[in-house]
Amino acid sequence: MDIKAYLTKKKELVDKALEKLVPPAKLFPISVHEAMRYSLFAGGKRVRPVLAIAAAEALGARTADLLPVAGSLELIHTYSLIHDDLPAMDNDDLRRGRPTCHKVYGEAVAILAGDGLLNMAFEVLSDPRRLKAVPAGRLVAIIKEISTASGVFGMVGGQVVDMESEGKDVDFPTLEYIHTHKTGALIRASVRTGALYAKAGKRQFIALSRYGELVGLAFQITDDILDITGTQEMIGKDVGSDIKKGKKTFPSFYGLEESRTRAHEVVDKAVQSLREFDRKADPLRELAKYIVNRVN
Amino acid sequence: MDIKAYLTKKKELVDKALEKLVPPAKLFPISVHEAMRYSLFAGGKRVRPVLAIAAAEALGARTADLLPVAGSLELIHTYSLIHDDLPAMDNDDLRRGRPTCHKVYGEAVAILAGDGLLNMAFEVLSDPRRLKAVPAGRLVAIIKEISTASGVFGMVGGQVVDMESEGKDVDFPTLEYIHTHKTGALIRASVRTGALYAKAGKRQFIALSRYGELVGLAFQITDDILDITGTQEMIGKDVGSDIKKGKKTFPSFYGLEESRTRAHEVVDKAVQSLREFDRKADPLRELAKYIVNRVN
Repeated sequence: MDIKAYLTKKKELVDKALEKLVPPAKLFPISVHEAMRYSLFAGGKRVRPVLAIAAAEALGARTADLLPVAGSLELIHTYSLIHDDLPAMDNDDLRRGRPTCHKVYGEAVAILAGDGLLNMAFEVLSDPRRLKAVPAGRLVAIIKEISTASGVFGMVGGQVVDMESEGKDVDFPTLEYIHTHKTGALIRASVRTGALYAKAGKRQFIALSRYGELVGLAFQITDDILDITGTQEMIGKDVGSDIKKGKKTFPSFYGLEESRTRAHEVVDKAVQSLREFDRKADPLRELAKYIVNRVN
Repeated sequence: MDIKAYLTKKKELVDKALEKLVPPAKLFPISVHEAMRYSLFAGGKRVRPVLAIAAAEALGARTADLLPVAGSLELIHTYSLIHDDLPAMDNDDLRRGRPTCHKVYGEAVAILAGDGLLNMAFEVLSDPRRLKAVPAGRLVAIIKEISTASGVFGMVGGQVVDMESEGKDVDFPTLEYIHTHKTGALIRASVRTGALYAKAGKRQFIALSRYGELVGLAFQITDDILDITGTQEMIGKDVGSDIKKGKKTFPSFYGLEESRTRAHEVVDKAVQSLREFDRKADPLRELAKYIVNRVN
């Protein structure tokens, strides 16, 4: 299958759904609506929504009604990027090739745009007009999955440890904690969200969770590698920012070559974890490979 | 009825529930868990959870299972206080008589503690272990209610306009927008959350919504008055901070005396809106009066 075409098609669907999920930029108060849209429509690859869709497809589910749910994953992802970029946090000026949200709208509006996106994810996930085809019990399970991945036991915890590790000689378990929480948690939750939506059986759910975990790890190793080998044009942000900030990364423990090998091993395992799935899981298999072979 | 005794009793129940809702401070990563608890257990009056409980009681519901839901309102309230106090926002050093969260834990951890509390509210509201007695459909409606009040159409929107109005000669409709969104939205949502939990009929729901709106307004007028007439000891934060920041308030439009009169009129209307309720709504009636007569 042509994974690039698949991604392009799904990304279009997600973008169209997102366009309907967030209020128009002309709404009062304009600044925060503009800021939310500025960061949300900055050319993200929509990896998390696409993973949710592919997971649901692997289980044979129709995914039209999943789009708002998948979109909420991108709202959460975008909120986390805006807050992570803040001067008090990673203090990044560039994201996806453009000035970061706080550079354009100021810190106050950036913090509030992040808060607005985070809240909006749950507004969407609890909106019966948007999700009337999804039973309430399943929505509650999805809200639990996403909020846990996004909160102190997930991304927030990961970002705290990431911040507190800057310039320190952290050990590998600490780096693993950062990876699995800051990036891994929402990627895993995205796959599991698709699985919950599609009423996965217990064995299927465990397999997809494992897949999500491994893909999250592969994603982060690749991010670490691209921070060294990429160009600013490729990755849309400052190159070498991890090293500049004294952040430990996968390559700082294992070197570039070994990191590449590991990333591919992890992807092989991710594909393996889907062995009981039929061809409907091919997009998931190809997505795992795409994630380590990507250049941005 | 003795509203002070009622408040004390309910506050104790809410505090006990909150103690169970948030993770222990010793959990890794310690800083963010400590910061969340520092702000959550800073002596808040728990007005929002108590309003939810009193609303459910007015409808004759048993409220033991409502406590985690009510607690989540306080998680949201606390998140908003932490973010509002940040240097990029209101830049407040003092809150409830103690240094603000970012003064103690730094800006990065304060932002993340706020994010953590916001996410945790939804973790709690979607946790079947905590809320098995509440049908999923009702939980979804409550999540919709709370996330909407907390997001860009509620508190976030109000804070944006509040920030952008500082030092400006805003008109009364703008002040009203700030009041109804920044403070009013979550107070109204608290009452409506109790109503949704207790399966209010349509007429009851409308009456309680009206009550919540009016109590929110009375609460804010009183806050504005206390910012002028209170002492730092009474209100636990800097006195006159609105004037110092060039913020328009209710008294800056109507003067102190007229503001007091208005606040009492609003409370009378709030009590009136409950006329079809029996004595089980007495706590709500007394809470409305308490809210304008309070000195902190």
